[in-house]
Amino acid sequence: MARTRIHNFSISLDGFGTGEGLSRDAPFGHAGERLHEWMIATRFGAPIVGRTGGSTGVDNAFAQQHEPGIGAEIMGAGKFGPPGWQEDPGWRGWWGPNPPFHTPTFVLTHHPRPSIEMEGGTTFHFLDAAPAEALSTARAAARGRDVRIGGGPTVVRDFLAAGLVDHMHLVQVPILLGRGVRVWDGLEALEEHYEIEAVSAPSGVTHLTFDRRTP
Amino acid sequence: MARTRIHNFSISLDGFGTGEGLSRDAPFGHAGERLHEWMIATRFGAPIVGRTGGSTGVDNAFAQQHEPGIGAEIMGAGKFGPPGWQEDPGWRGWWGPNPPFHTPTFVLTHHPRPSIEMEGGTTFHFLDAAPAEALSTARAAARGRDVRIGGGPTVVRDFLAAGLVDHMHLVQVPILLGRGVRVWDGLEALEEHYEIEAVSAPSGVTHLTFDRRTP
Repeated sequence: MARTRIHNFSISLDGFGTGEGLSRDAPFGHAGERLHEWMIATRFGAPIVGRTGGSTGVDNAFAQQHEPGIGAEIMGAGKFGPPGWQEDPGWRGWWGPNPPFHTPTFVLTHHPRPSIEMEGGTTFHFLDAAPAEALSTARAAARGRDVRIGGGPTVVRDFLAAGLVDHMHLVQVPILLGRGVRVWDGLEALEEHYEIEAVSAPSGVTHLTFDRRTP
Repeated sequence: MARTRIHNFSISLDGFGTGEGLSRDAPFGHAGERLHEWMIATRFGAPIVGRTGGSTGVDNAFAQQHEPGIGAEIMGAGKFGPPGWQEDPGWRGWWGPNPPFHTPTFVLTHHPRPSIEMEGGTTFHFLDAAPAEALSTARAAARGRDVRIGGGPTVVRDFLAAGLVDHMHLVQVPILLGRGVRVWDGLEALEEHYEIEAVSAPSGVTHLTFDRRTP
């Protein structure tokens, strides 16, 4: 049975998944790269920023689960580009000609545009749809494989609130952002539906996994 | 040099230190006892609810640090009693004749009343004072020992914001309260002033310690 998964989604101690003041020069606003330093320090994450090497411990063990078994991704408009990308017909995402998704990738936006086929298997499709409908479309495209919810925090929250997430891996980074977009708002009693594990890593982050309880 | 310390302060994953709807029958509101189950399961915490035994692992190692070296406590009005206790001249706290503080204990309130001497070394004093002034008073009473900031979340936040906390032990419990009083609001970049460690326990909670960096 195909699942809906979230991986490597980083939040601050105070629950922000991104900062304030997002722009083309500051994709995560005042958070900068601090939410993702743990990941680019791993063997999985180093190539994303053009490095080699990287750690191979618990952070890497979690990070590399991002890829296997995924047949499609759903992401929010805020992950695809900076505020206003909808007005730039040439915007093709942050990731260059070969984005790190390698599957059909559905961008949720109120301003859909024609699909964009990139190198390496990524095709961006643009959908103006609620979570359940988007998931249904992504599932069909995933051909029996799992669908990843790629973020940002608003999309993670919306899919959790709609009860559509089977597995979630969050990474709590020991910083206080103070402002930005919170992942947790409106999710009271979420723990009733999930088995939750926490494991702290020597790097200082804490990995949280949520696995949906079987009814 | 005497320090200002916070111990065993439990918060939900979404950062709430207490729930909503506090009352005499529900001291933590809709949070119930869920924030403190980890502690009453330890050897340190079991006697608080009249039990014997209890776990002796990492949760207990942290929990028992609550007492040693403390010469005074400061707590908020919301820890001393339910909303409205200020109008009840007979209210002497939640803890019966022998409260678990055993030191001078300063209750911050805009409605001070005469001090109350309890059994076992606890004397409640009532102060209408800002954090720095309250700490100065408590330090004098502590006679060279440390001062503990006992909570609730508003008091923890106020003392952190004022830069008055040397050591803080938080316990993150894997539940989502969704509403109540948040400990984290307004503490952006707190990590710049502290060494932070995180360690997850088999019980499911994660212990976070903050130690103030020496300048």
